[in-house]
Amino acid sequence: MRTGSEAVSRTGSPAGKGHQRLNRIELTAIGIIHTPYTEPKDMPIQGRFKDDVEGWLELKEEYVPGLRDLDGFSHLIIIYHFHRSDREEMQGQPYLEDESHGIFAIRSPHRPNHLGLSIVRLQRIDGNRIYFTEVDMLDGTPLLDIKPYVEHFDRREGVKSGWVDKHFEDGTAPEETIIR
Amino acid sequence: MRTGSEAVSRTGSPAGKGHQRLNRIELTAIGIIHTPYTEPKDMPIQGRFKDDVEGWLELKEEYVPGLRDLDGFSHLIIIYHFHRSDREEMQGQPYLEDESHGIFAIRSPHRPNHLGLSIVRLQRIDGNRIYFTEVDMLDGTPLLDIKPYVEHFDRREGVKSGWVDKHFEDGTAPEETIIR
Repeated sequence: MRTGSEAVSRTGSPAGKGHQRLNRIELTAIGIIHTPYTEPKDMPIQGRFKDDVEGWLELKEEYVPGLRDLDGFSHLIIIYHFHRSDREEMQGQPYLEDESHGIFAIRSPHRPNHLGLSIVRLQRIDGNRIYFTEVDMLDGTPLLDIKPYVEHFDRREGVKSGWVDKHFEDGTAPEETIIR
Repeated sequence: MRTGSEAVSRTGSPAGKGHQRLNRIELTAIGIIHTPYTEPKDMPIQGRFKDDVEGWLELKEEYVPGLRDLDGFSHLIIIYHFHRSDREEMQGQPYLEDESHGIFAIRSPHRPNHLGLSIVRLQRIDGNRIYFTEVDMLDGTPLLDIKPYVEHFDRREGVKSGWVDKHFEDGTAPEETIIR
């Protein structure tokens, strides 16, 4: 199988526009994400605010041995490709916000490399199917990686969440999407 | 600029080995990660356990407008390419562990697509340089994305961390690396 690293012809030095071809990395989908959401407008801001919806990852059979012991984790980090995004923006205006923010300060799909990340709650694994809740991906999204969510690495205290904090001031989630 | 989505010729259906070329996604490094670590053996298990070390992201100039308002966040999610990995494994045995686990249940670099993820603490932004602590990447690592760490989305309560939990039973981090 071709791996991403084989496709990197050069790294280690900063590159301007003329050198971009030297920094290309080629990935292959390891599976497909199945969810009830076929259009962005139907999705919740983040899956954890609507936890009665279930999705599942359909892993290519060749990767099933990689799932060993994953069932000991309550949460997973899913990395995927925002395949429906047709553009790359440097700024975006999240829903409910009056001003725009840099693309690296929001979770918009219209970002360089179109990589998406969600933390989901693992429900059960059945062969090559990984069922989960806290769903916020579109149906048919190409899956790129699954990592265990490790409390000791991934959970932070004393976090400042920039422009997002004001929408959660009363300790509850806003009713409307603010990210998509 | 070529975007990742242009390189996807087909998605939406599961694919076996014969269809892998139809699921390829092409990424471009948006910058380079600079750290004091030139060899894997020198790195801490996760950066948050050694917070006196600073690294910086060198973002390509064309992406600097995307940093607007990122300075309001205390933590960032960094996605990068494990460019030094020369292999893809389905199982791996973390340091201090007696048995191996599936590649999706560990954070090994030798994984399909070689995508790495770290949560770091933002220190300051100066032009195209983003300085951070909680460093656990190798010097020269290609940077693929920066996302804001949002407490309301990314922090979970009641987490079970599988095989990792036993190494943190007394509430402190183990002295030795257990992931690399």
